Amino acid sequence: MKKIVVLIMDGLGDRPNSELMGLTPLQYSFRPNMNTLARKGQTGFMFPVSEGVCTGSDTSHLSILGYDPRSVYTGRGPFEAMGLGLLVNPGDIAFRANFATVDASGVVTDRRAGRIRERTAELASELSFELDGYKFTVAAGVEHRAALVVSGPDLSDRVSDSDPHEVGRKVKEIKALDESGERTAEILNRYTERARAILEAHDVNVRRRASGESPANIILLRGAGKAPEIEPFANKYGMKGACIAGIPLIRGIGHLAGLDIIHKSEMTGSYNSDYRTKIRETVHALRDHDFVLVNFKATDVAGHDGEPFKKVSVIEKADEAISPLLDLGEEITLAITGDHSTPCAIREHSGDPVPLLIYTDGIRADQSEKFDEIQASHGSIRIRSGDLMQYLLSVSDRAEKYGA
Amino acid sequence: MKKIVVLIMDGLGDRPNSELMGLTPLQYSFRPNMNTLARKGQTGFMFPVSEGVCTGSDTSHLSILGYDPRSVYTGRGPFEAMGLGLLVNPGDIAFRANFATVDASGVVTDRRAGRIRERTAELASELSFELDGYKFTVAAGVEHRAALVVSGPDLSDRVSDSDPHEVGRKVKEIKALDESGERTAEILNRYTERARAILEAHDVNVRRRASGESPANIILLRGAGKAPEIEPFANKYGMKGACIAGIPLIRGIGHLAGLDIIHKSEMTGSYNSDYRTKIRETVHALRDHDFVLVNFKATDVAGHDGEPFKKVSVIEKADEAISPLLDLGEEITLAITGDHSTPCAIREHSGDPVPLLIYTDGIRADQSEKFDEIQASHGSIRIRSGDLMQYLLSVSDRAEKYGA
Repeated sequence: MKKIVVLIMDGLGDRPNSELMGLTPLQYSFRPNMNTLARKGQTGFMFPVSEGVCTGSDTSHLSILGYDPRSVYTGRGPFEAMGLGLLVNPGDIAFRANFATVDASGVVTDRRAGRIRERTAELASELSFELDGYKFTVAAGVEHRAALVVSGPDLSDRVSDSDPHEVGRKVKEIKALDESGERTAEILNRYTERARAILEAHDVNVRRRASGESPANIILLRGAGKAPEIEPFANKYGMKGACIAGIPLIRGIGHLAGLDIIHKSEMTGSYNSDYRTKIRETVHALRDHDFVLVNFKATDVAGHDGEPFKKVSVIEKADEAISPLLDLGEEITLAITGDHSTPCAIREHSGDPVPLLIYTDGIRADQSEKFDEIQASHGSIRIRSGDLMQYLLSVSDRAEKYGA
Repeated sequence: MKKIVVLIMDGLGDRPNSELMGLTPLQYSFRPNMNTLARKGQTGFMFPVSEGVCTGSDTSHLSILGYDPRSVYTGRGPFEAMGLGLLVNPGDIAFRANFATVDASGVVTDRRAGRIRERTAELASELSFELDGYKFTVAAGVEHRAALVVSGPDLSDRVSDSDPHEVGRKVKEIKALDESGERTAEILNRYTERARAILEAHDVNVRRRASGESPANIILLRGAGKAPEIEPFANKYGMKGACIAGIPLIRGIGHLAGLDIIHKSEMTGSYNSDYRTKIRETVHALRDHDFVLVNFKATDVAGHDGEPFKKVSVIEKADEAISPLLDLGEEITLAITGDHSTPCAIREHSGDPVPLLIYTDGIRADQSEKFDEIQASHGSIRIRSGDLMQYLLSVSDRAEKYGA
């Protein structure tokens, strides 16, 4: 039985690029380590979710971990909250939230509190407290944007918004959409009231009112979503897992699955992220974990930026960083792939399949010579992301026999 | 419309083997017939059940015949019974059983009757009889092990064990686990009593008692399982089918599906099995059957034994034996594959895909040059085992039009 490392180069897949002489960034890059692994291992295509589906990072990472997003991706609330760095547990409910301005009669006069940029993290922290056995946690996003996570017994996402969605209307009372939401609606209305009192008195708002700016004196909630009750990774696969990622969304998904989160400040999720540290932490984590999911985000950033040469240089930095994993084939199975394609030419995600590379000692090596989207046609693998874990378990001699 | 022959080389798939200069046994073998068929036909990968699933021969053969094991594989009872050579029909119930020893008060003193090896087939035969319209059939396995199959109206597997699972306890009365099991429990308790009387009086036990050995004076039942109510093969595909296999488990699955079973003593399921006879019987069966499933078991045996050179020689014997099928491309579609991989290096089943070869005259030949796990990457086929029959129907011009 071997341990398993899955390296996701976010948005790795691309298309031929005129700036790169008609090559994809992966093809164009100097990637001796990945090519060595391709020669010794297997390559091919992975279809995120299924053929042609243009996934987000959230749905794709869920699927790669073996959770079918079609049943567990329960709306954006919990995943937006994860994206802002909140750790969401199965059964929690989450909301997208706005800092907004209300007048004395409760009418919303500015849904964005003047696009406030001032100390919102501090406001969020003040709005994070316990009430009647329920735990409320707020995280601030860009400008007025925020998210709220509620933990506690018997929560339901069958509740309406407090956000009236337009100015000049009163903040709405949150209502249960069916019986299951009654207790949740009640506690949320009390939370909103208490939060308003805290915000009204906060010195950020005292100052804003004094200088004629819209105070952030209420938090408006919308889009209730319940975090899915998913089977913990350790139960599902009999492996203790860890997750190493620069961006909060991926760490949030890892946490939801029950993976241990390993994070250091130099893992930034951007061009300056320190991939050597990530790989060093991966090797370190393998001492007491059976599985490590590592995400390198900047390939996706370069795709969204429409910068093929930047994507090439991120790939080259990654190739150099993975060196320590190359000689661990007796102990680990290493898979390298993307969660989706983000072609520089379109600056957005696409449903193109992603190249996939798998290596471990003794693997049935195919005739792959290089690791890229074009050579992958000659590789042996064609797999949907939801089947990847089972395939890796098998290659790692961890698959349980089905039948006799 | 052509007839179809599916040759399953059990456990065929393998991994690179250091003893074979880094080749798989199939790659290493002299296999001119299979390579000729590969050049004229199609090759590729079949995923038993789905990608990375490490199947048993039972689940995989069900899937290859188009029965989804996830819905029809109803626990081990019926399949253990088939493995001991009992023919199980849809609706029958089956038990794993032990010959055991009880004292006069009904307390189990030895759950294995001294690991009896003496004339157990004869005891099993004595315990095979009809009672109140129900037919009981027992087969003996290794030492004290046995299986019981019960046929008759309205049987249910919702019944408890008679086996107390430890010595020093009384034989348990079989109880219904819900209403459906009431009649079944009643008849099984009466069977147990009658069986005990027969065993007590049997001369094997008279002799064992006289020589101080534990008599096999009771049969303990456990793990009731109902044989799945599957659609007969002939209804499902409009083809009359036959099954030729050396091991009882595969014949049992074929019988369950309604295939005619063809068996001769020289089909042993081991290294000495006579593949020429199997192929001769296949050609013979094609006179009055539309479909023949043939299983060669010894490739799997060599994998479990960790003997790559033996696996090579089994493959070479198979390659020679299939000669008579090579010129039948106008009348038949021939598929050659495995039911799973049994790599010699791990001596167990694995979830690696298996190579698949399909030939018939006029087939859309791909660029395959050889038949093996590595060249299969260049082949055109990637298919899950559950889709194989439909694909073969299509290649054989037997597929019904879906739509207009």
